[in-house]
Amino acid sequence: MKLAAFDAGRGRELAVVTDAGLVSITRAAPGLVSEMTDLIARWDAVRGAVAEIAASRAADAPLAGTRLLAPIARPGKIMAIGLNYADHIAESGMETPAAQTWFSKAVTAVNGPNDPIQIPKVSAFLDYEAEMVAIVGAGGRHIGREAAPGAIFGYCVGNDATVRDWQHRTSQWVVGKSFDTHAPFGPWITTADELGDPHGLGIRCLVNGETRQASNTAQLVFDVWAQVEHLSQAMTLEPGDVIYTGTPGGVGAAMTPRQFLKDGDVVRVEIDRLGAIEAVCRPEA
Amino acid sequence: MKLAAFDAGRGRELAVVTDAGLVSITRAAPGLVSEMTDLIARWDAVRGAVAEIAASRAADAPLAGTRLLAPIARPGKIMAIGLNYADHIAESGMETPAAQTWFSKAVTAVNGPNDPIQIPKVSAFLDYEAEMVAIVGAGGRHIGREAAPGAIFGYCVGNDATVRDWQHRTSQWVVGKSFDTHAPFGPWITTADELGDPHGLGIRCLVNGETRQASNTAQLVFDVWAQVEHLSQAMTLEPGDVIYTGTPGGVGAAMTPRQFLKDGDVVRVEIDRLGAIEAVCRPEA
Repeated sequence: MKLAAFDAGRGRELAVVTDAGLVSITRAAPGLVSEMTDLIARWDAVRGAVAEIAASRAADAPLAGTRLLAPIARPGKIMAIGLNYADHIAESGMETPAAQTWFSKAVTAVNGPNDPIQIPKVSAFLDYEAEMVAIVGAGGRHIGREAAPGAIFGYCVGNDATVRDWQHRTSQWVVGKSFDTHAPFGPWITTADELGDPHGLGIRCLVNGETRQASNTAQLVFDVWAQVEHLSQAMTLEPGDVIYTGTPGGVGAAMTPRQFLKDGDVVRVEIDRLGAIEAVCRPEA
Repeated sequence: MKLAAFDAGRGRELAVVTDAGLVSITRAAPGLVSEMTDLIARWDAVRGAVAEIAASRAADAPLAGTRLLAPIARPGKIMAIGLNYADHIAESGMETPAAQTWFSKAVTAVNGPNDPIQIPKVSAFLDYEAEMVAIVGAGGRHIGREAAPGAIFGYCVGNDATVRDWQHRTSQWVVGKSFDTHAPFGPWITTADELGDPHGLGIRCLVNGETRQASNTAQLVFDVWAQVEHLSQAMTLEPGDVIYTGTPGGVGAAMTPRQFLKDGDVVRVEIDRLGAIEAVCRPEA
């Protein structure tokens, strides 16, 4: 199943994405779920009703031309792994890490999949990072590798937008990764049961139609199951938590000469079977 | 005013702390505010009613013996600054940073001010860091130094509990700072208008009664106003966001020999005029 959030003039609504368009769960069953995190937390109880809505109701809005919103409006946390594709490690001049290198993105950075990305007032060094995003389902603590697939609800396409000078001004990357609008993901959540194994999907980033990143999630140094196992040794993963799973080579900061995103640039991230997100870059108002 | 959250057998309640004890806002006016973040966001509208409750109602629970909860149950984000007291920088063998060094703590790490702190299954290197915590009020973006005091709602006592081996396993500290129960703060929020200038408060950490850290918030390298100005250049600060403002010298990892927290150790953090929090360390169940 594909689950989205959209705004067609009535505020935020949750939807199933079908061949016909967006079928609104919110309109069909106003009391069923309050938010996507709620839907995820109670998925076993509500999935039947959601499937029934998708099968029996006409689309409430077309996919084309309707504004999609971030599928999770306000995650509890956004964790992101760095240096997790061999080609990106090489271009960064780093060693393949022996341990997983994690940072976070502030939840105030969440952005709709196709909404403009802000070029900050305080920096001219905005960069893209195409990433597959995992959405935590049941979650938990001390989730072993074998149990990890059962802890994930689904997958999205994400852009781990990064302000390079702020990222590297100190040893800690978090602020440079947390500017407002710099955590777009979507266009919808493809559920784990529909997708199957998330390792083996082509992933690409295009800027103004030019391919900048092109790899495959089979190239993850630490795969999604290892990520879940590692993180959950430290912290409880909760329904709707967002995990950025790493970016392949080809970021603008590693190009010769370096390329950063400018006013009007269109950044598109696509992943096989998960869809695409596309944003124009605009100076912060 | 001093604002707390407590549980006296009826679940989470918000309260004003008075000389008589805990006066429950939740019992006095069930519909007034839903949570502390809501109270903070609507403070101008509700402060009169809250003051009236505090002045006219008998205490609902004594302070002694009542379980206090984290004043903010679920902040939007927890940001924390490293290397921000000269003596702590020296003991860490680091240079005084030219720029503010920020990391985050996961919101799943929030803990009650006097609740047990977990010694992780995966580490024997649990350490304390006494910190003054600022609670964001109006917040906003691009808050200049002059406007920063108006963006802060109040202050708490915090312990930036840290798993040292995980903190330093990679270049990024976030996971080592984000273990469950490792973000205790409280015992209540002292409002900014009651406190006045937060710079100039004695801050101490005691382990089993032995003073380990003793400094003064006047020694902050980057003061609270500089912190607000810096963070808000990147991200929107929201009501109830939590800011750990740095720890002074004397952490266990810098002692000779190094000392880490063991089962049964009692860690107390006190700050002049803000109160004290005290927790026993227990192995994760």
